Amino acid sequence: MEASRQVPLYETERIDDLLTHDLKIIQSHEVFCFSMDAVLLARFASVPKRGKVVDLCTGNGAIPLIMSTRTPEAVFDCVEIQERLYDMAKRNMELNGLSHRIHLHHGDVKNAVELLGHGGYDLITCNPPYMPATSGEKNINEHKALARHEILLNLEDVIRVSSRLAKNGGKIALVHRATRLIDIITLMRQYDVEPKRMRLVHPRRDAEPNMVLIEGMKGGKPELRIQPPLVVYEQGEEYCEELYEMYYGKRDSLV
Amino acid sequence: MEASRQVPLYETERIDDLLTHDLKIIQSHEVFCFSMDAVLLARFASVPKRGKVVDLCTGNGAIPLIMSTRTPEAVFDCVEIQERLYDMAKRNMELNGLSHRIHLHHGDVKNAVELLGHGGYDLITCNPPYMPATSGEKNINEHKALARHEILLNLEDVIRVSSRLAKNGGKIALVHRATRLIDIITLMRQYDVEPKRMRLVHPRRDAEPNMVLIEGMKGGKPELRIQPPLVVYEQGEEYCEELYEMYYGKRDSLV
Repeated sequence: MEASRQVPLYETERIDDLLTHDLKIIQSHEVFCFSMDAVLLARFASVPKRGKVVDLCTGNGAIPLIMSTRTPEAVFDCVEIQERLYDMAKRNMELNGLSHRIHLHHGDVKNAVELLGHGGYDLITCNPPYMPATSGEKNINEHKALARHEILLNLEDVIRVSSRLAKNGGKIALVHRATRLIDIITLMRQYDVEPKRMRLVHPRRDAEPNMVLIEGMKGGKPELRIQPPLVVYEQGEEYCEELYEMYYGKRDSLV
Repeated sequence: MEASRQVPLYETERIDDLLTHDLKIIQSHEVFCFSMDAVLLARFASVPKRGKVVDLCTGNGAIPLIMSTRTPEAVFDCVEIQERLYDMAKRNMELNGLSHRIHLHHGDVKNAVELLGHGGYDLITCNPPYMPATSGEKNINEHKALARHEILLNLEDVIRVSSRLAKNGGKIALVHRATRLIDIITLMRQYDVEPKRMRLVHPRRDAEPNMVLIEGMKGGKPELRIQPPLVVYEQGEEYCEELYEMYYGKRDSLV
């Protein structure tokens, strides 16, 4: 598919390659750019072949864009509270000709069940705000602050709402700071989501992990599978092979 | 210290090197041998310089023997329900001249609080039975079956008793199968033990972890530190450097 559709660009915005399947993405360094965490989550989640997926806190829509390349038929509902980002995400779907499969909703994640209905989804993904609302590093830029800090939404909100959106046996996949693992696990169990698969993300091979990818199943039976560590940088600033493939696809086998 | 004291050996028993600090250990392949898990836990736990430590399910006493080399003054109380193993552990302390610091108790871990008192310990360690009581692989040998299967003691018993033995701020360190991580974490929180430090044990660098080392703090504040992966085999059947050092001490730097 050619990504040459005409959509309006606002001040400070630019169109970047999403680096996979010829997808393009509008972003703005002053408002919102997708992060590596979004790419990791979009690759980690168990995307169904068909059925319904929700992405909460969708930002500019990078996660559903990437997930759409992993499923022939699934449809996506995406929720974003910031009107500026909702609008950017909506244009991103038009830009890539995906508006028929990826639907954007401008609203508060805390009201997502009223908006999208109870118990109808096969997968819920979320790359939520990570930092405490009171954190000293709070970003001065309001758009970035709301996306990064637990100001409008905290971890318990995300898991409570996700659990209600999921059908029985549906999956809930999150990316978060590794230091919050214990909270994620206890909140998942509290809301009847059994953690089934986990992967720790290490900046370097022998470093402590800074991020965790975790997927639970609504009403699932206890048995956690922990996958091998995901190492970001192999040597110097070069991505390791697996991460390179996540971003760019497989290297040419002749190289 | 010379480990040449005379202690009786029973049928099938032999004296092995514990491979560190010239320690010796009596074991029997028909009754009980310490495992790599015991070595890993004894190296992982935050052993205090002084104060009081409990080892539950102590088997033949490998864990307190190794931990005693990591502390100048701490004293150990160790509980073992199987009389045959309790007796082996007791002779192991005599063999190594450590009976004054490492005390053996023949009894049920479920009664350990009545035996050792409430809230008096700086560290509790346990390498508990891992396998379900109903597991198909149940060992025919009764001694091994009781040590390996949750027949007399389950994970919740271990964490409930450990929490009651610990002083506020005291540590509880366990080694267990990685698939039980979610249960360990939720039970720790249930009994006011906050998981503070965790390390996953991978058989090989790119393999899924099979074991987890985890340490919680009684009444601690939430913030988990996940350490880098511990890889057992580097290439072929050779231990990786770190594990080699755990067993044998540092390699000669000239080699």
